[in-house]
Amino acid sequence: MSVTIPEWLQDLPLVEAIPVELPAPRLDDNTGDLDRLLRKLGEMGYAPIQVQPAGLGALLGRIRQGDFAVTAVLGYTPCHWELIDIIPGLAPDPPLGIGVDLGTSRLAFYLLNLRSREILGETSADNPQIPHGEDILTRILFARQEPGRLELQRLLVATFNESIRRLTGAHGLPPEGVYALAVAGNTTMSHFLLALDPRGICREPYIPAANRFPFFRATDLGLHIHPRALVHVFPNVGSYFGGDLTAGILAAGLHRSEEVKILVDVGTNAEVVVGNRDWLIACAGAAGPALEGGVVERGMMAAPGAIDRVRIDPDTLEASYRVLGDVAPAGICGSGLIDLMAEMFAAGILTVQGRINPRLDSPRIRPSDDGMTYVVAPARESADGRDIVISDIDVGIFLKSKAAMYTILSVIIRKVGLTFQDLKRFYVAGTFGSYIDPAMAIRIGMIPDLPLETYEGLGNTAGRGAAMVLLDRSLLGELDRVCSIITYIELNVNMELMNEFRGATFLPHTDPRLFPSVRIPEKAMGGA
Amino acid sequence: MSVTIPEWLQDLPLVEAIPVELPAPRLDDNTGDLDRLLRKLGEMGYAPIQVQPAGLGALLGRIRQGDFAVTAVLGYTPCHWELIDIIPGLAPDPPLGIGVDLGTSRLAFYLLNLRSREILGETSADNPQIPHGEDILTRILFARQEPGRLELQRLLVATFNESIRRLTGAHGLPPEGVYALAVAGNTTMSHFLLALDPRGICREPYIPAANRFPFFRATDLGLHIHPRALVHVFPNVGSYFGGDLTAGILAAGLHRSEEVKILVDVGTNAEVVVGNRDWLIACAGAAGPALEGGVVERGMMAAPGAIDRVRIDPDTLEASYRVLGDVAPAGICGSGLIDLMAEMFAAGILTVQGRINPRLDSPRIRPSDDGMTYVVAPARESADGRDIVISDIDVGIFLKSKAAMYTILSVIIRKVGLTFQDLKRFYVAGTFGSYIDPAMAIRIGMIPDLPLETYEGLGNTAGRGAAMVLLDRSLLGELDRVCSIITYIELNVNMELMNEFRGATFLPHTDPRLFPSVRIPEKAMGGA
Repeated sequence: MSVTIPEWLQDLPLVEAIPVELPAPRLDDNTGDLDRLLRKLGEMGYAPIQVQPAGLGALLGRIRQGDFAVTAVLGYTPCHWELIDIIPGLAPDPPLGIGVDLGTSRLAFYLLNLRSREILGETSADNPQIPHGEDILTRILFARQEPGRLELQRLLVATFNESIRRLTGAHGLPPEGVYALAVAGNTTMSHFLLALDPRGICREPYIPAANRFPFFRATDLGLHIHPRALVHVFPNVGSYFGGDLTAGILAAGLHRSEEVKILVDVGTNAEVVVGNRDWLIACAGAAGPALEGGVVERGMMAAPGAIDRVRIDPDTLEASYRVLGDVAPAGICGSGLIDLMAEMFAAGILTVQGRINPRLDSPRIRPSDDGMTYVVAPARESADGRDIVISDIDVGIFLKSKAAMYTILSVIIRKVGLTFQDLKRFYVAGTFGSYIDPAMAIRIGMIPDLPLETYEGLGNTAGRGAAMVLLDRSLLGELDRVCSIITYIELNVNMELMNEFRGATFLPHTDPRLFPSVRIPEKAMGGA
Repeated sequence: MSVTIPEWLQDLPLVEAIPVELPAPRLDDNTGDLDRLLRKLGEMGYAPIQVQPAGLGALLGRIRQGDFAVTAVLGYTPCHWELIDIIPGLAPDPPLGIGVDLGTSRLAFYLLNLRSREILGETSADNPQIPHGEDILTRILFARQEPGRLELQRLLVATFNESIRRLTGAHGLPPEGVYALAVAGNTTMSHFLLALDPRGICREPYIPAANRFPFFRATDLGLHIHPRALVHVFPNVGSYFGGDLTAGILAAGLHRSEEVKILVDVGTNAEVVVGNRDWLIACAGAAGPALEGGVVERGMMAAPGAIDRVRIDPDTLEASYRVLGDVAPAGICGSGLIDLMAEMFAAGILTVQGRINPRLDSPRIRPSDDGMTYVVAPARESADGRDIVISDIDVGIFLKSKAAMYTILSVIIRKVGLTFQDLKRFYVAGTFGSYIDPAMAIRIGMIPDLPLETYEGLGNTAGRGAAMVLLDRSLLGELDRVCSIITYIELNVNMELMNEFRGATFLPHTDPRLFPSVRIPEKAMGGA
């Protein structure tokens, strides 16, 4: 999934390659070579500068190799600049950086030219830790002892190295030209990358080993980029609010907005941040994997073969659909499921209670062991020669997930004393956010009934945030501020929430005043 | 040679072991373990704190091992504190530090308890680079290429490790308890320790690779102390004014004195600093190795067998002497030579022109191939069964050295517009400074004719300065100030200096008004 860079960023790259002509040494200026370079850079405003001592001898030799005309590569950390490299001569290649979305399932890498500010390319790879556990809890168990932690780290680093080699190679660039990495992952994934003990994350009171991480250098982690390259790992707010989300806040620019905006990242957990430049409130809750295409019998991830768009003719009850990739359909992904539910509801196939109406006369509607089913794609069209259907049970699972989503949104908005109408912008992160059609999601009551232009899919916000700090170092300070002002609230499952939740399992809701734009078809009113 | 610690030091050790009881993690305080520790330390005034990322996982694990009651070991660098270690529990051993005098010929190590501020012990070792060159120029040639540099570094580090193992072992302490090393060496030796290219030091315009060095960590250099221990290498002012001397300035407290004081370090080069808290002027000049017992036929370093004190009966012209160690004399060391010259002069054996008076009637005075000689110790008393004598040629060599010394002193004092009488204190560094008798040195016109109480031997000023920064980190800032205010002047060999020098080769000087306290014996007046 591509990322784009917002226009409000300042041109303050995390790494700068600065050509400097040093005054030639003279008898009456007995400043050492290093001191001479640091003095000049200091005069240019780069101060204080720290120098990592490993390999210092070879590094300083370059000053004379360049006959005192050199390019200093400086990396920024909030308390000092760091001398990453000295290159003889004044015409250096542009410094490269890589933004990384360190996901539980997939890793995405974005290669940036830090001078031209272009995204040169991207690549992705499966998270290599999956053999040690699809879910993160199994991996934490695997990592209870040091050897497990080191193995999980080794796997990640190997995938980083292979992906970076491939990505830079595709552009004819050397991996050693990469001077900075910014990595946005959830709290557990960041712990895995840094081989920190993850056990505190899943044990009450759920305290991670670290929320803010020091800057690492490539050699600390065994990364095959420039050995002194800086590695920035996004800070967490807590065990359940990780660096992927703090990166997301940057990506959405929530922390600099005058108006109140909301950012929703939908996955196994739905993570929500609402706020503006003065305050930020975050929460997370289990929305269920059904929203991403999981659990539902013929659900699948958004990938070739997935049905991602569905339309149903209300008169004939016939379905038409779009398939990702030029292939026969194999299943239905999250956005396809939302479309399907919304269209089934509009056509009266689904009742407000979320039941497939058995009284409709259509060859597509028929009973099965899982209750009534609706055939989205008949066997002759599908990849596996079986009907692609949705059953009452599938619908029930899906509506629970959408209800959880809506409940989480309602609760947090009420917590901050606002109504949905106060939200000037509703950002949806992730693959999901890029593909869903807000009109459809509103129709099923999954998201609030706001003007459609309020909604915006942001794509990979973790990757976007990571790319952004590489281009604008001032965001590191903003990130610090985000972490210090954000309030994270636990959603307690209490009676109020349960009532709220039950109401939200209906289509669109037991309280139709919440969704004034949604027309409820007559046929859908007749309970099953 | 022992060092002592001046009383004016503040109790601000470079490394502190700080017991902290952290608030137990709770659901409503989702601060990470590391963040919790840093927050607490910050509240105690330790901020900002940097954490080196290598080995971070194991380090953070100690917080829970100690059940949130831990001792944080923090090292100070001028721009931040560094988290060196976390020890479970609240009753840590005192942190240790080692001050190192990194000499061209000898290394000296001083073990300090940074809590009790005691010097626990010391040890020394030959510089292991000597096989690659007695003199520093030969070693620089050996180190022109990287492999040579790495070999010289390896040798030093091995000797550091062996000496530190021995020194800590002698006190039943583990080398891993050493959290800081402060190393004071001349510019070339510091470059050798850090494997920096030393070639610039000996090529016009004599610019070293670096004057100020970053803090190193033990692992950067392969030192077997605590792996995250800080290594501070004293800054140089230039190629010929190294960290041994900036340490010496601290040791002498020159930079905090209201009155003008002078520090002289006599070796192959005589290095001189004069000044007070507002200004410091330094110079160095070849005083000749004769002052340390070199070159002169029967001269030797101050070591067992060296004659270090001589008295001559002016009536009988018989000599008595003291020998270092309980052994037969083998030669004469620097302080012995000064005594010898002074006593020969007082007894009229030496003329004001520096000739052994051939007209005196004594069995100790006789001609040789090297001109007239005086027998200090006859063959029957000496270690090698040969007379220990001093010849006209020896005297000539020695007087050139003492003349160089006096000339350097005169020139620098005149440069700053003062007279010797303005000096309230005259510190003499090194072995030499500990052993010479100022009265004798004045008598031969080697040092100015000041009240004897003006003179003070400071012992190993490099080692002392190194020990001092371990006990008082505020000296790092003072060291910075020293380096920024000090002016280093080259002594040009011009006509004025030559005239000055010629006058100073006499005993005590061609201008006796410069040495009013020195009585010139009648016999010494009759030129040879």
